Amino acid sequence: MSADRRLRIAGHREQVFMERTILAVDAGGTKCRARLVAPDGTVLASGEGGACNPSTELRGAIAVLDALVNVLCRQTMPQTERGSVVLSLGVAGLVDVNRRTAFLSAHEGFAEIVAMSDGYAALIGASGGRPARLVILGTGAAGHRLFADGTSIQRDGWGFLGGDRGSGAWLGRRAVEAALKSYDGAAPESLLSQRLVALLGSGEAAILDWLLRATPRDFASLVPEIVAAAEAGDGVADALLEAAADEAAALVRSLEESDGGESEGEPLYLLGGLSELLRARIETRIEQRFDVPQGGALDGCLLAARGQAPQERRR
Amino acid sequence: MSADRRLRIAGHREQVFMERTILAVDAGGTKCRARLVAPDGTVLASGEGGACNPSTELRGAIAVLDALVNVLCRQTMPQTERGSVVLSLGVAGLVDVNRRTAFLSAHEGFAEIVAMSDGYAALIGASGGRPARLVILGTGAAGHRLFADGTSIQRDGWGFLGGDRGSGAWLGRRAVEAALKSYDGAAPESLLSQRLVALLGSGEAAILDWLLRATPRDFASLVPEIVAAAEAGDGVADALLEAAADEAAALVRSLEESDGGESEGEPLYLLGGLSELLRARIETRIEQRFDVPQGGALDGCLLAARGQAPQERRR
Repeated sequence: MSADRRLRIAGHREQVFMERTILAVDAGGTKCRARLVAPDGTVLASGEGGACNPSTELRGAIAVLDALVNVLCRQTMPQTERGSVVLSLGVAGLVDVNRRTAFLSAHEGFAEIVAMSDGYAALIGASGGRPARLVILGTGAAGHRLFADGTSIQRDGWGFLGGDRGSGAWLGRRAVEAALKSYDGAAPESLLSQRLVALLGSGEAAILDWLLRATPRDFASLVPEIVAAAEAGDGVADALLEAAADEAAALVRSLEESDGGESEGEPLYLLGGLSELLRARIETRIEQRFDVPQGGALDGCLLAARGQAPQERRR
Repeated sequence: MSADRRLRIAGHREQVFMERTILAVDAGGTKCRARLVAPDGTVLASGEGGACNPSTELRGAIAVLDALVNVLCRQTMPQTERGSVVLSLGVAGLVDVNRRTAFLSAHEGFAEIVAMSDGYAALIGASGGRPARLVILGTGAAGHRLFADGTSIQRDGWGFLGGDRGSGAWLGRRAVEAALKSYDGAAPESLLSQRLVALLGSGEAAILDWLLRATPRDFASLVPEIVAAAEAGDGVADALLEAAADEAAALVRSLEESDGGESEGEPLYLLGGLSELLRARIETRIEQRFDVPQGGALDGCLLAARGQAPQERRR
């Protein structure tokens, strides 16, 4: 394969795309996964790296991606000179133009860079690039929809302090608030409050210290406690799970844009760490079953780089 | 007045206390206020400094207090050699023993240091040192009660992520969540959501940037928007204010410890930036009027240093 795309004869756009080596990267706030794929679809190398979130830790995100790229390209030299490779990247936190520019321009020498949000990569990976809707419920929460005209929308994904309604961090924070309200004697004790207070620490100083250091992931890590309490019959815990399902159902409905046309027959996916936990509760609310995804976010990155799915273009 | 307390004849504890020069400091997360008071009650000097919160910014808090102390002592030299002065300090964030030690040991050379929480200083300042209850609703929220045996309790004050139920930061965060839910089309639009979204920024990137930098104080600064929307008839905004009043009323009730005895006839105070806003709503809920405080937190620091109020001793 020639590294020089200028020599190609235009006209068969997909053909051109198919002849490129692609480095697909699904970059997340917890870890990155990467796959280097030859034009014929052969996986040349794959690997994992640390957390990559340009909006909260720009320098760290650049370093993590750089290390991952270097390892994979070096493993497969000489056939994967960077100049012949398309980097196709699904990553959160590129909404801000300055941050986007700083992050992408730090990775030089590729034939092309295709960048999209991690949620969009998951959406087109799930649908094979066809119009579809996706709700992701993990530490955070976001909804995505791809329209027939190739444009897309995102709803929520505002993060821990402003939204991520119904997410693990959202659930954990509400559970902690309820538990400390009981601890204060401002609400009745419950199984949930007892379990959580015991988990946060022994005594006021330990609890305050936990709160001072707590990240969204720490709050989301409390979800199994909420589930256990709900299963043991705790009404407060069950109400929290119901409220999360309410939020997720509202997020599904918010993807029905008035100018987006009907979504009848269009697949609807649910992904993320909380999907199994809340699937049935959400399905009851929206009176619809979720579809089974065709592939993951790395597949979405490959599809976008090959021109088999639209590149992300937000309405 | 002699600087050497060892020369005094014991027996008249209050008398001894009254003969000391006191540097009272009300140290808050927004600013510090300090007053240097001679044994006869004459104010020798007073001043203000920056934010002082040992739990979130230990070094900054030490530096701010140090600068304030130095300025006041130097202004009034030679009569206020540090060794003859009692530093009496109301400050948040001293629950953790290590942080408390680090903060207090950084201020050396005083005849004595009397340290209490800022809320306790406000409580005894309000009651003149007598048993009483106090709810503080500002950027954060906490309840305090002093019992007849000299011990006291605190409720809430867990901070922005774990509690501060009904506070300005709590209100602002809930309002932002509601506004972004409307912005996402997952809830109906309201006057509140329109005002807040306009205030957070123009477009998704600006809003995300606001959220990324937002402090509890930033969230609390949105309260006037909530009030304006509620006054214009916005139901969502009014429901938020009602929910905050519910939380504050529950906080008042949580101060009735089962082992604390009746609080009949004991004064009940409401302080903080949200007190005027929520006073009537809370009074309706608790079927009781709040009392008028006798003095402020600086007065509380002076009382504790003079032995006219118990030093803080938590149950």
